[in-house]
Order: sequence, then C-alpha cells, then structure tokens
Amino acid sequence: MWFTSDNASGAAPEIMAALTRANEGNARSYGAEAQMDQVRDLVRRIFEAPEAAVHLVTTGTAANALSLSLLTPPWGAVYCHSHAHIAEDECGAPEFYSGGAKLVPVGGAHGRMAAEGLEAAILRAKGAGVHGVQPGAVSITNVTEAGTVHSASEIAALAGVARAHGVPVQLDGARFANALVATGATAAEMTWRAGVDVVSFGGTKNGCLGVEAVVIFDPAKAWEFELRRKRAGHLMSKHRYLSAQMAAYLQEGLWLRLAGHANAMAARLARGLAEMPEVDLLHPVEANMLFPEWPEGRHASLEAAGASYYPMPSPMGRERARLVTSWSTTEAEVDQFLAALRG
Amino acid sequence: MWFTSDNASGAAPEIMAALTRANEGNARSYGAEAQMDQVRDLVRRIFEAPEAAVHLVTTGTAANALSLSLLTPPWGAVYCHSHAHIAEDECGAPEFYSGGAKLVPVGGAHGRMAAEGLEAAILRAKGAGVHGVQPGAVSITNVTEAGTVHSASEIAALAGVARAHGVPVQLDGARFANALVATGATAAEMTWRAGVDVVSFGGTKNGCLGVEAVVIFDPAKAWEFELRRKRAGHLMSKHRYLSAQMAAYLQEGLWLRLAGHANAMAARLARGLAEMPEVDLLHPVEANMLFPEWPEGRHASLEAAGASYYPMPSPMGRERARLVTSWSTTEAEVDQFLAALRG
Amino acid sequence: MWFTSDNASGAAPEIMAALTRANEGNARSYGAEAQMDQVRDLVRRIFEAPEAAVHLVTTGTAANALSLSLLTPPWGAVYCHSHAHIAEDECGAPEFYSGGAKLVPVGGAHGRMAAEGLEAAILRAKGAGVHGVQPGAVSITNVTEAGTVHSASEIAALAGVARAHGVPVQLDGARFANALVATGATAAEMTWRAGVDVVSFGGTKNGCLGVEAVVIFDPAKAWEFELRRKRAGHLMSKHRYLSAQMAAYLQEGLWLRLAGHANAMAARLARGLAEMPEVDLLHPVEANMLFPEWPEGRHASLEAAGASYYPMPSPMGRERARLVTSWSTTEAEVDQFLAALRG
Amino acid sequence: MWFTSDNASGAAPEIMAALTRANEGNARSYGAEAQMDQVRDLVRRIFEAPEAAVHLVTTGTAANALSLSLLTPPWGAVYCHSHAHIAEDECGAPEFYSGGAKLVPVGGAHGRMAAEGLEAAILRAKGAGVHGVQPGAVSITNVTEAGTVHSASEIAALAGVARAHGVPVQLDGARFANALVATGATAAEMTWRAGVDVVSFGGTKNGCLGVEAVVIFDPAKAWEFELRRKRAGHLMSKHRYLSAQMAAYLQEGLWLRLAGHANAMAARLARGLAEMPEVDLLHPVEANMLFPEWPEGRHASLEAAGASYYPMPSPMGRERARLVTSWSTTEAEVDQFLAALRG
Repeated sequence: MWFTSDNASGAAPEIMAALTRANEGNARSYGAEAQMDQVRDLVRRIFEAPEAAVHLVTTGTAANALSLSLLTPPWGAVYCHSHAHIAEDECGAPEFYSGGAKLVPVGGAHGRMAAEGLEAAILRAKGAGVHGVQPGAVSITNVTEAGTVHSASEIAALAGVARAHGVPVQLDGARFANALVATGATAAEMTWRAGVDVVSFGGTKNGCLGVEAVVIFDPAKAWEFELRRKRAGHLMSKHRYLSAQMAAYLQEGLWLRLAGHANAMAARLARGLAEMPEVDLLHPVEANMLFPEWPEGRHASLEAAGASYYPMPSPMGRERARLVTSWSTTEAEVDQFLAALRG
Repeated sequence: MWFTSDNASGAAPEIMAALTRANEGNARSYGAEAQMDQVRDLVRRIFEAPEAAVHLVTTGTAANALSLSLLTPPWGAVYCHSHAHIAEDECGAPEFYSGGAKLVPVGGAHGRMAAEGLEAAILRAKGAGVHGVQPGAVSITNVTEAGTVHSASEIAALAGVARAHGVPVQLDGARFANALVATGATAAEMTWRAGVDVVSFGGTKNGCLGVEAVVIFDPAKAWEFELRRKRAGHLMSKHRYLSAQMAAYLQEGLWLRLAGHANAMAARLARGLAEMPEVDLLHPVEANMLFPEWPEGRHASLEAAGASYYPMPSPMGRERARLVTSWSTTEAEVDQFLAALRG
Repeated sequence: MWFTSDNASGAAPEIMAALTRANEGNARSYGAEAQMDQVRDLVRRIFEAPEAAVHLVTTGTAANALSLSLLTPPWGAVYCHSHAHIAEDECGAPEFYSGGAKLVPVGGAHGRMAAEGLEAAILRAKGAGVHGVQPGAVSITNVTEAGTVHSASEIAALAGVARAHGVPVQLDGARFANALVATGATAAEMTWRAGVDVVSFGGTKNGCLGVEAVVIFDPAKAWEFELRRKRAGHLMSKHRYLSAQMAAYLQEGLWLRLAGHANAMAARLARGLAEMPEVDLLHPVEANMLFPEWPEGRHASLEAAGASYYPMPSPMGRERARLVTSWSTTEAEVDQFLAALRG
Repeated sequence: MWFTSDNASGAAPEIMAALTRANEGNARSYGAEAQMDQVRDLVRRIFEAPEAAVHLVTTGTAANALSLSLLTPPWGAVYCHSHAHIAEDECGAPEFYSGGAKLVPVGGAHGRMAAEGLEAAILRAKGAGVHGVQPGAVSITNVTEAGTVHSASEIAALAGVARAHGVPVQLDGARFANALVATGATAAEMTWRAGVDVVSFGGTKNGCLGVEAVVIFDPAKAWEFELRRKRAGHLMSKHRYLSAQMAAYLQEGLWLRLAGHANAMAARLARGLAEMPEVDLLHPVEANMLFPEWPEGRHASLEAAGASYYPMPSPMGRERARLVTSWSTTEAEVDQFLAALRG
C-alpha cells in the first residue's frame, strides 16, 4: 500500500528490458547514439511537431529550470500557480538557472491558474517600468499540484493571455501522460496548438527510472538549451541509458497505458472514499492524486495496516492526506487501503 | 575497436544485475532508500573516513561543479591545470555553479600540476587586495587529462601548498579507480590523508551507467551540498537507481578489478606501440589513456579497419590520437588495433 | 510644489560645501582618504558601536542588495513586507546579488511587517526540508513604504522572531533619519540593540547627492562586503566624494535636522488635509510620506496649479496620490498645495 | 608629486562649477532630468552616432561589466589582453555581471592584444562544441594597461577578426580621451567605424568626480542595459549629478584639453627619464602612464623627496615603478620628480 508518490514505484518491465538491451556493446556518447534518433522521431510524431527540438535530462527539476532559463531573462517574472512545484518544491532551481528571476504567484482554485489573475499580474509588471522585474515567462503545471487537470482549452486561454503580452509559455508536464489520459486531448492540442513554447515531458513518475524530455517547439532555441544543459552537468555521457528508457516509454503507447492505469486506480480509490460519509475530498480527483480529509485517528490505524502516504497540515479534529497512485498500483492495494480506512 | 572514451563502453554485468534487482517493488525516494545506507557504509569504509558525507549525482561535471561551489566563494580563484577537464570540457560549469568564480590555469608537464606554479599563482592573488579575485580552491585531476597519474605524495605536496595558504582542495577523480590501481595507493592516502577536502569519485567511466559519488570529509558541509544539489536538479527522485549502481560498483572490489583491466589493456597497447619505431607516445602511459603520434596516413587505414578514437591536432607529416581503454576493452581489440596500425 | 519624491530635492548647502572643500588637491583613492576615517568614527559614535564596519555606496538599491547578499545564501528566503522597496522597486537586485534568493512577502497593515506572519513564513520554510528554500534573512523597512514607522520595540519584536530561528536581520533605512526623528529612538535602539545585523543607512533622500552607508555590526563580515562591493562596481575610485558627503551629513546633527524638517512639512500637510472632509488619508502620516485620497478631478486642478507628485491607482470616483516632503520643502509650498487642493 | 593614479586627482573646476549649478532646486530623477538630454546630444554628436544609446554610471568597473553582460551569454568566452583591467583589477566583476562567463587571456606586446592570438583563441572555442564555452565578446582596452595606445586601424583589425566570427566588441575606454589625443583619431574612427559595439567612455580619471558613459551603438540593446543597470543598483536617483558632470566634461572640448595636458605631462616626464642612462622605460610612453626601471635605492630617495607612485615587482638590483599623470599634474611636479630621481 504505497501511495506516497509516483516516484516510489519502480520502472515498468518494458523499460527495464529496453535498458538491458541498450547495454550491449559500445555506443556513441552524449546523445549521438542511435536510440536518441528514435526518441526524436517518436516525440516529433506524438507531438505532430516535425521541427521540434528534443532533449533528455534525468529530473523534472532540471527539465523545468532549464526550460524556464531559456524563456525568461534574469530580470523576468515567472508567473506560476501559488503552489506550483517550481515555487515550492525545487529549492529555488528556477532562480538559480535563470540567474535570479522572480517567481510571481498567481492564484486559482484547486491548483489551476486563473487567467484573470495572470493578466493582472502581467499588467502590474508592465506598469513598473525599469524599477520592477519584467514579464518573463508563464509556467503552467498539468496535472496540477492539486491533482486536477487543465483542459487543452484552459491551457489555450492561459497561453493566450501570455502571448497577447508577448510572454512565452512553459508547461510543467511531470505528469503529462496522466493529463492527456484524463482529458482525452492529444499532445499537440495540449501544447503548441494551445500556445505552449516548451514542455517538460515527464517519464520518471510514470514508469521510467529517471528521464524527462524537454520539447522545444522553436528549434532556433535548441543550441542554447544544449549549452545550458551541458554547463549544468545535465548532459549524460552514457546518454543511451536515457534514450533507451524514453524510446521504450513512447513505443506502442506504453506511456499512455501506464498513465491510464494510474488514473484508473485513483478513480477506484476516489469511488471508495466517496462511499464514506466521514471522508471529504479537498480537490476533484481527475488524474492520479487524491487529497482526502477524514476524522482524527485514521492516520494511526492506516499506518498500523501498512499504508504509506503523506499526511498534510490539518484542521482540528480532522486529518488530511495526499495519496498518489502509479502505473504499478494494484487494485488489491486500493481495496486494502479502503478496507483499512473503513476500520 | 572502440577507443574513443571510457564512456563509450556499457555497464558491467554486475551493475546491470544490481539495477534490475533494485527495480523490485516500491522504495523510498530522494536517497532515503536502503541501498544508499549501504553505499554510505561502503564509501566510508573504503576511504577509512567514518564521518564522511557521501552524495550521488549522475555526471562528473555535476560532481565537480557542485564540489567546487562548496569550496570557493563567487569571487574566488579556482586553481587547476591548464588543460583540466573543468577548464576545457565543462562549458563553464564551475563558473555557473560557483556564481562566477575564475579558473586560474597552472601549468605542469604531462597534465600534472606543478607545485611551484600553484604557489606562485596563489601568492599573486593574495597580493591583489580587494581589486583581484581571492584564492578560492585548488582542483587536482587524477588520472590527469594527459593520462598520467599523480602519486599520493604528489597530491600531498600540492595540497600542502594549498593548505599552507588556507585554500581547500578538490580532487576530480573521474578515473579515481584507475589512479589507485596505477599507484597502489589507498583511497585514504590519495585523498584526506594527503589533504584533499572533497572528492568527485567516478563510477560512470568505469562500468556504471551514470553515477558519481561526491565524498566530503568535513560532514559540516553536507547539508549545504544537499541544498545545492537539489537546487541544481541533481537530486534524483528514484534515487535507488543511483545507489544500486554504486553499491554494486564498490562491493567485493569490483571497481578496482574493472579499472585494473582497463589499465592493463592500456599497458598492452602501449607495449605494442613501443615496438613500432615510427610511433611516439606524447605522454607516459600510466593508466588507461594513450596519446600516440604516428606518420600521416594511419588515421585512414585505422578507420578502414574499423577503429574508433579521437584524432588530435597534429604537426605536419604526423598524426596524433587519443586512445582510451575501458573495463570492457578486450585483448583481441587491442591486438587487432595494433595489427591495423602496423598495416 | 515638488512632492514626487525626496530624491527630487537637491543637496543641502552644508553638503555641497563639504564636497567643494574635498575637491582640493590629490587624495588617496578607494576609501583610503582621510575623510573616510572621519565617517567611520562618526557612524560608530552615532550607533554606539565602536567595532562596526562602515562602507559607502552610491545608491539604496546597492546598499540593500549588497547587505542582503551578505546575510542570505542563494537558496535562502528573504522575508520582507509585501510592498517592500526591495520586492517592488529594485528590478530584482536582491535576487541578482544573492545569486537567486527568493523574496517571500509577509503582510501587515500600513506597510508594517506583522510578527506572526513572519514567524509563520519561517516555519513553513523549515518544514520544507531540502525541497524548499531555507530561511535566509529578514529585511525590515523603516520608514515603511506606506510612510509609517516601526518603533524600536516593533523592530525588536520582528528581529526577535528572526533570531529565535537563527535568521539574520537587515534594516532598509533609506529614510532612517526620518524614522529616528519620528520615534525619538536612538540609532542604537533602532538597530543592534533591537537585533538588527546590518543597516542600509540612507543619505541620498535626505540632503546628500548620492551616498548610503552600510553599517555592519559584526566586523567579521566586513572583508566579504568589500569584495562584493568591488566586484559589483560599487567601490568608487575617487571615494572622497562619498566620504565628504557622509561626513558633512553626520556632523553636528545635520542629518537629524534635515529629516526633522521633512517630517514637520509632512505633518503640516497632514494637518491641512485633515481639515478637508472630502480628503482621506490611507495610512497614518508618521514621517515624510502621505497617501491622500480625494474626489475625482483634483489631479487636474493640482497639476494646473503646478503641483508635482505621483498619482496612484484609485477606486471609482476618487483619486489617490503619494506625496513626499523633503529637507528642502518649504512651508509656502505646503500651503500653496493645500490652497490649490481646496480649489 | 602625486603619480599614483589619475584617480588621485580631483575634479576640474569647470566640472565642480557645473555640479554646483546643477544643485539648484528640484529636478526629475533617474535620468529624466534636462541635463541628461544634453549629455545624450553631446555624446551622439562627438561619436557621430545619432542613434546611439547613452547611459551613465559611477565607476569604470560597472561600465565594463554591464557592457560585457550585454554582449556575452553566461557560457561565453570574453577575450581580453592577459593584463586587462577586467581580468586583473575588477575582482571578477565581468564574471558576476555576465552570470559566469570566462575571461580568456590573449597575449600581445606592451599591453596591446595581438590579432593572431585573438583569432587562434576564437577558433579553439569554436572547435570545442558543446563541451566548451562559446565565443562571447572581445574586450579591447585603449589606453592599454601598459600605457600604450591602439591606433584606430589596430582597433579595426582586432574588431575585424571578432566580427568575422560573429563576436561583438567592447572597448574599455577608461582613458578614452587620452587615446584619442595620442592618436589623433576621432571618437567615431576609434569605435563604431572600426567595428566596436559598446564603449565604456571614462570621465572619472580625466577630471570628473565619478562618471562614465556607456555608449551603445545599437539602440535595440538600450532597454536591456537599463534593466541591468537598475538591477545592479547603478541607476542613480539624483541622476542630475552624473549628467551635470558629463555635460561639463564634453562641452567645448574640455575632455580633450584635460587629456592633452595629462599626456603632455607624461611626455615631459618621459623626456626627462630618457636623458638618464640608468633609467629604462619598459613600455613606450604614448599617453599618460610610464613604467620606468631604475637602479635599486631610488624608491627610498624619491619617497624621501615626497613622491607618490606605485612600485612594481622588480628584478634584482633594479626597481620598477608605475607613474601616472593627470589633468592636474603640473610641470613643476614633473620637474621636481626628475630632480629627485637624478638625486
């Protein structure tokens, strides 16, 4: 019963198998290996973006921070949701990579950035002249930190505000597959067709060992990205171990199948919770994260039953939790958790 | 016949097997997994340093740049050999990570830093007052970029100069195992006993997929390192895949066996080259790199025979090359190369 | 009728005279001139801090950003009021100088930081572990951006929260003299006795041409400050022109007389506004800034009458303004402004 | 007998008078004052560059570091003479401002950068691919640190190499006026006509209190410069005190007259030294700096006679010195120095 995070799960068998195959013999290094060509082709086909630049890194923080450093100057404001991962969980990586940009929080219910709030924030910066930071970039997270999902048209609305003011848009897609499965949108609809410039396209949380693709729709920015990546120590020498993972992940829809399973397990968990009147859900369950609240005392009994997850700050008399399902969550685990919660 | 670099080779079977085992089930993330405890124990035992902090990252550039940023202020001079990897092959990573420190080249024959040159450079900085950068750190590479090796007492001499001026010392040990095998020194003799503060202890080039340990002998610096690593996007979430590699690498002397093989293959190659009067070696062959020079025309015939390696800038009528052997180089490959060169 | 800012006024005659005197003959440069010794003595005596380090720079932004870079690591949170000058009016200078620290806004009525809000923010950071930025420094502004004043005991309360958590404290005293005059506190009571570590002690807005003193109560940090200042291009070569201003400013209480006059002019203006029922004051007038709100249409008539000041974003049917008095504001200007407003 | 540096001299009477006049009444701040319009006109006329952007800062280090940060990316190499001021005397300011660029020294006799050395260095960087820093900018100093002068055609040759490789060019003109007087070139010939993109045009060393103009020939870069300057704390609020100095400096050829005097005093000193067979000059005297070498013992007698200057590292039995003349050096001082040296 592991629901701490989707990074507690292992790698999918198809991906481990690909890694093992990739280990045969010598190979060119630094991304010049054959598998990377395959990755590039797969990503471009999936995103319907034949010119897109595709680069691999090992962590979501690197993918986000490098992407943003490509879009914002050091004196830029990066607009993101108040609880965005880049704002709260990356120890200032965007500030480090960008040379000191300022993250400007934009509110919005259930983890979704509000378009009016975004516009207001951009207008404030424009009015500040030389004394204030300038609009730099917008960062949208999908799946959001609250486990909700932006539809492609919501992304388009936010990106529309940004582009009307000449501000580029990054998508933090650490759980991009889960968002596509949840909305039924295509990768293209959710990104460049909606106005997104760069995507952090996650693999790690969804069955890889550790690989994220950065997809840059304007190939003119690719060389700068490569230099920034190298300079940050994120260009792997035995790069084939990244490209082999990503190639296996993207082949034959594995990535969508894995995410579909994770989302389905979350839905099963949500249905079970909905049947318990003493349990509330703080946010709609739309992908693979749940934020339930239950009466005081359940943490102890769940722990005793062997459940792992993160407790959250809670009001008096109640307990809150974050639960995350993954590609490897089983129905049995879900049912066992529900049973333990029922007591 | 791959001699381009030791990063062209794959991972050793023991390490792939460990990775596959580590993939079972769920695990705690971000280094809280059980394998990391094992790595810490192994490293401390090998280095005879029971208090040392041990952290893993995926690339040598990250290991070096993070280490140096721990030792030098932004206004510091980092003394390194004129042809050090950090100076020539990391796209300014030390400058990026340190917030703008200045790499100050120190000369020395065959890739080895000269102690007098180091002292002169430190004294120059001390005389510059507030107008110049201040002594920040010394970075020594072992195995050097010329394929030679510093003995433990040479390291101690350099570190002695540094410490006499209050300057901390980092060791770039991307090929640390090869250096130990070549000199017969212990890990402790080559590092903290010689006056080294932080080591980049490489695994990638010697049979891992991609993992380097940063060993910090003063544990008071460990927390800062962790924050810097996270902020740089170098804290892997599924960290078990790093610790599993490193644990397998360090168990039962695998790391030394692999390096011993690589060095032996280089020695075999060197012996073969020594028998050809038209071939010179630009640097003594002490570990797993060779820098031969031969008559013009051999590049073409070697390429035709299927050999891969890096040609180097060469004088008129001659051709220079860099050849690197690895844990997976075979005697057959070496002999085949020599035969092809003989023509 | 200039009320745009206290930086619209010129330099006081005593200060221009000192500058002219300082221009005689040759002098040592970079702060080694005799006047700097005098400045150091004066500042130490005024602050009752015989060990304090004292350094001069030309702008408040430099004083603040350099001070903060001394106190916070790049991965630190700098707690400041939501509308602090460092947050809104310095184009990200603290982020630049600190290497990417994050400004964390703390609320509070009328521009004063609330101690509970500060404590809550520090506790949040402590709970985030390696994934979040760490408590770095607290920056308190006195006079605040709303023209109100923190008493020495309010400063002590805020600094007490900070110090209880091991967080150092900077005071942005661009209008420090005005704050002392307003509260009757001594320089020592308002700073180190209250727990402040570093002060930006402003001269420019209060009758100098352009000089701010950075007062560092722990002299062990002085050398780092000097290196940071030089590296930022803020070490003036003909430094005597800074020290001459500051020496004249501090002699015979000139600085307090000038600030006393500015505050008195603001009080006179406030009394006049209080007599007009259609005019509200958004914040208490405690030093030399006023934030009145009056009926729509007055901007036009005031402009026609020759008044200069900044209009502010306003609600329907009303107009808001910021008015700042200075050492050179005259009673006649104040009365003329009030007459024009009365219409 | 002050020959320590041209920053030991005061401000010329015309400039102090202008400062005193500028102090009258209130003025708009941050460069919106009337005097700045005048400065812009004067600079554009002098440089025959009607579109040039003109910005003022208080130090040469700020002018250089801000200029370079406009031209080079953080992963760029900045090519400069091995003994350039930016390399040796600015405590890493270019590295700080650029976000970690690397200064790459280029040799050349008597302080002048050699065009072949520059080309070789650029070609090396181009060959390094993603692993090395990329060509970023060239920085030429005129007057050089050795007191020699690049002619306009020498500047054009260096800039020609840079531009052929797409690398922009900055001119460190801390002693720009002295260089023009020495060569007879016009400001335009020495800069944009020769291929220079940005000039640090010094005033401080030549009779101002502390002001340098940054002249940017491509006005599209002006806004970025303004943001960088503000963010660095180098936008003066009472900016009129900078523009008043610069306006007076540029009016009626004052700047060239002052530099002409400084150069003439250096020439007089050089003539006197040439008459002493025991005195050598290490570099040709072309502007206002001299590097004599004389027999051991003269430092003591000169000091006893009241001479101030910097002694330099010297060979056995000899003594070396740096002497700098300025706008305020008198013939009497020169003759007195020569007499003291003769003994």
